[in-house]
Amino acid sequence: MQPSFVLPRGYPGQNCSIARTLEVLGDRWTLLIVRDSLFASRRFDDYLQRLGLARNVLAERLARLVDDGILERIPYQETPRRHEYRITPKGRDLLPVLVAMIEWGDRHYAPSGAPRLVVHAACGGEVKQSLRCEACGEHVLAEGVSTRPGPGWRTAAPAA
Amino acid sequence: MQPSFVLPRGYPGQNCSIARTLEVLGDRWTLLIVRDSLFASRRFDDYLQRLGLARNVLAERLARLVDDGILERIPYQETPRRHEYRITPKGRDLLPVLVAMIEWGDRHYAPSGAPRLVVHAACGGEVKQSLRCEACGEHVLAEGVSTRPGPGWRTAAPAA
Repeated sequence: MQPSFVLPRGYPGQNCSIARTLEVLGDRWTLLIVRDSLFASRRFDDYLQRLGLARNVLAERLARLVDDGILERIPYQETPRRHEYRITPKGRDLLPVLVAMIEWGDRHYAPSGAPRLVVHAACGGEVKQSLRCEACGEHVLAEGVSTRPGPGWRTAAPAA
Repeated sequence: MQPSFVLPRGYPGQNCSIARTLEVLGDRWTLLIVRDSLFASRRFDDYLQRLGLARNVLAERLARLVDDGILERIPYQETPRRHEYRITPKGRDLLPVLVAMIEWGDRHYAPSGAPRLVVHAACGGEVKQSLRCEACGEHVLAEGVSTRPGPGWRTAAPAA
């Protein structure tokens, strides 16, 4: 029997890009694998050692990330044949999600300061994320934000 | 027996603000509850209806979000006593995580366009997140980013 807290992989009733993203990212290991792919690991044993999760779980998560186009599996040695996992451009696009998580964790759970800083490779400065209004250019905080339906709203429903 | 893919709640070996954040956010329902708290729901039955999850799972997730200071449980009616859930400032700080997820989902999983737009309440313009270097002011893409230890790096280890 499946325990009741196990999520289905999809949220078919939700016309929402957060729900779509969470379907792909799947679970917490997945985001930690993406983190390591961006900043540190490429090989199965690197992920295994850094993350400390079970081999079968890691293998399943890596295979899913390859299927979803977030990692590529590329041979780096012929005899014996060995593969490594490289982040794709679509995977790199997840950096803002990770940076936003880092900033929230640093703010609320790092009383001794940030454990790691995200830095601009070209100049060594710290990289920060921000929200900005494209129309008026203002920096926006959560209080000043709302949502409205976009062009893809309920495209699955029959036209009225 | 716990299935092997169930995560422990904590990642004690990981000195990382992404891992800390994922410990708190817990699972995918949690982020969808935060989404609804920011933009739509306050009452138990609103979440239940919008999310379509089991009552006991919702109750457990809401209680955890209250414990973690992301939602507040506030009475809105005395007889019978009823409560609603309001997002706290710490919860509002999660908006950039959600906006980054929305942008990634819109880019890769919304061929008909964004289902919802995040807009600046003051002027109606679209809100976008970006990464910027605090030192040189340049907009930064994932290729141009690395990390280095910050002030909170391995504070749990004994001083050398």
